[in-house]
Amino acid sequence: MYFYLPTKIYSERDCVKKYGAEWASLGRRALIVTGKSSARNGSLSDVTDALKEQGADYFVFDEIEENPSIELVMRVRDLGVREQADFVIGIGGGSPMDAAKAVALMIAQKDKGADFLYQKGEKASALPVVEVPTTCGTGSEATPYAILTIHEQRIKASLPHKVYPAYALVDGKYLMDLPRQILVNTAVDTLGHFIESYINAQATDFSHMLCEYGMGVWSSAKNVLIGASRTPEECDTLLFASTLAGMAISHTGTSLPHGLSYYFTYEKGVPHGKAVGYFLPGYLSMAGPLVRKKVLGLIGFPDMQYFSAFLHNLIGPMEADDELVTKAVKGIMANESKLRNVPYEVTEAMLYQICNMAY
Amino acid sequence: MYFYLPTKIYSERDCVKKYGAEWASLGRRALIVTGKSSARNGSLSDVTDALKEQGADYFVFDEIEENPSIELVMRVRDLGVREQADFVIGIGGGSPMDAAKAVALMIAQKDKGADFLYQKGEKASALPVVEVPTTCGTGSEATPYAILTIHEQRIKASLPHKVYPAYALVDGKYLMDLPRQILVNTAVDTLGHFIESYINAQATDFSHMLCEYGMGVWSSAKNVLIGASRTPEECDTLLFASTLAGMAISHTGTSLPHGLSYYFTYEKGVPHGKAVGYFLPGYLSMAGPLVRKKVLGLIGFPDMQYFSAFLHNLIGPMEADDELVTKAVKGIMANESKLRNVPYEVTEAMLYQICNMAY
Repeated sequence: MYFYLPTKIYSERDCVKKYGAEWASLGRRALIVTGKSSARNGSLSDVTDALKEQGADYFVFDEIEENPSIELVMRVRDLGVREQADFVIGIGGGSPMDAAKAVALMIAQKDKGADFLYQKGEKASALPVVEVPTTCGTGSEATPYAILTIHEQRIKASLPHKVYPAYALVDGKYLMDLPRQILVNTAVDTLGHFIESYINAQATDFSHMLCEYGMGVWSSAKNVLIGASRTPEECDTLLFASTLAGMAISHTGTSLPHGLSYYFTYEKGVPHGKAVGYFLPGYLSMAGPLVRKKVLGLIGFPDMQYFSAFLHNLIGPMEADDELVTKAVKGIMANESKLRNVPYEVTEAMLYQICNMAY
Repeated sequence: MYFYLPTKIYSERDCVKKYGAEWASLGRRALIVTGKSSARNGSLSDVTDALKEQGADYFVFDEIEENPSIELVMRVRDLGVREQADFVIGIGGGSPMDAAKAVALMIAQKDKGADFLYQKGEKASALPVVEVPTTCGTGSEATPYAILTIHEQRIKASLPHKVYPAYALVDGKYLMDLPRQILVNTAVDTLGHFIESYINAQATDFSHMLCEYGMGVWSSAKNVLIGASRTPEECDTLLFASTLAGMAISHTGTSLPHGLSYYFTYEKGVPHGKAVGYFLPGYLSMAGPLVRKKVLGLIGFPDMQYFSAFLHNLIGPMEADDELVTKAVKGIMANESKLRNVPYEVTEAMLYQICNMAY
């Protein structure tokens, strides 16, 4: 087993400003990658203030869409090359943070075409990346993963390249104005990371440690998800859980719920965390009774029924039809990288059962 | 709070050989730093076999003494410069592994004199370092610390520079032939790392996670220390605990027991782990009752009396006199870096009490 996470993670109030002298001196000209609304919580201005204070130059691309595509990444790459960026800052949820990694890779590989993004077995360097999460789901600030939409294949998939951020700047204050449903969906994504990393053929003592501790952290703040208000401290807790979950999946990858979710996000536009949540009761049910009991205990539910009801209350019933379910099941049966992570043999019947538990 | 540990840790049987293609290609000519007996467990031949397989050149310095001095480090540095080493491999317990870091630093800073070792505020690069632990105490394979003996000041002290190993290759099989008392002493050192990191003003959720999980791991193997035999799996467990403890103190540093221990090691030649163990009951007693109970629970003792008896059984009574105790107490009262880590105000009376509990 191994442990590897070269990212320097600062997880505290005002860390963007506090550690500016460190991270903002990674280069001389930063490309900031964010979404239209992702950065309206003060994060963008905190980042640009720190850059100015360090005398670093920057320019902003703020049109990252949800589930960014290869085409968009290549467009931003061209911009970065033209503008001579020497480091990349992602601000937002998984979409801008993953895009930032992919862009940082492709700027460093500026002679390569879009094909390179999914080319396996290539060791390639990337520009240094700084990530500033503003949702509590992706954990991308603490993973080497970047997931893009491949329109040609009508699916989302992770790049085979690993781009570890140089810095993760984790401040729960950016979550205070997050729309409630995004807070909920992304916190469910985090739960998915924990469950899929814990019940995983690649799990190790290191990843178990991160999951066991992290599920306790998540559980301690989960009631915020059903309540109407939130405190900055509760946001800190949810975001800290998200970072720990990122650290866990960095070592194991995700499993069936993530694999299945991509079909529902692509075809129905279901938000990522919500789509992952559909399949968590089913995935947990497939695990052995002792593991299931342990996980339920760690996340603070007495049994499966409570857990399913809690999730259903948060994300509602699955939006899908039989045809899409069949497509997802067939897709997973051919997806070696997800199947490899399941600690038992997967059959089609099992996958249908996991999907059925989502209705 | 922060998390940072850029070391790639492989913790599994035969990892030196298995991952040779990765670590042995860090450079073209390795300086191997080890002790006369540290490498007699197969570790040195595993390392040289892997280097040969990768076509890397190497030379061995196998005269690292216990508690290596500044003078020795400078001697090995000169050898490394002369022989044009471009990476350094430490094999053994804390002494060779710490020496490897200091040597790697000074080869990269070849124009600097010995004064540089303890010069504060300097950012300095080091040659890449690979660490192969063969005791279950130091955790040095997962820390940026190097502790040397300063004869001028009659004490041991940590360098202000941080040298994170590039690789830690952690294989419990090298512990199978370790003399029983070294196994015991180093396992007590690990326990000290956990307790001093857990009860620490610099403790964070990250370091608590490492300590809480790690104390459970340590506890699960602690009975090996009072038994006569050991299995490779038990050695794996003790060594894994040691690495986790290293990861924890990387984020917090150690505290009073380590600070006090250095005087007893320097003046009486008491082995490091044993000297640390003297002060653990006292340090734990000073903590609040809830923290004390939590730690005792995690390491598997019903109360302080059991814990003290267990330790006493392992390491025996303190070898010291009043004069030395007074010297250590006065020394600690002037040691800001250790005092800073104690989560309560330290008085001389408190330190005397900690020492008294060691008799």
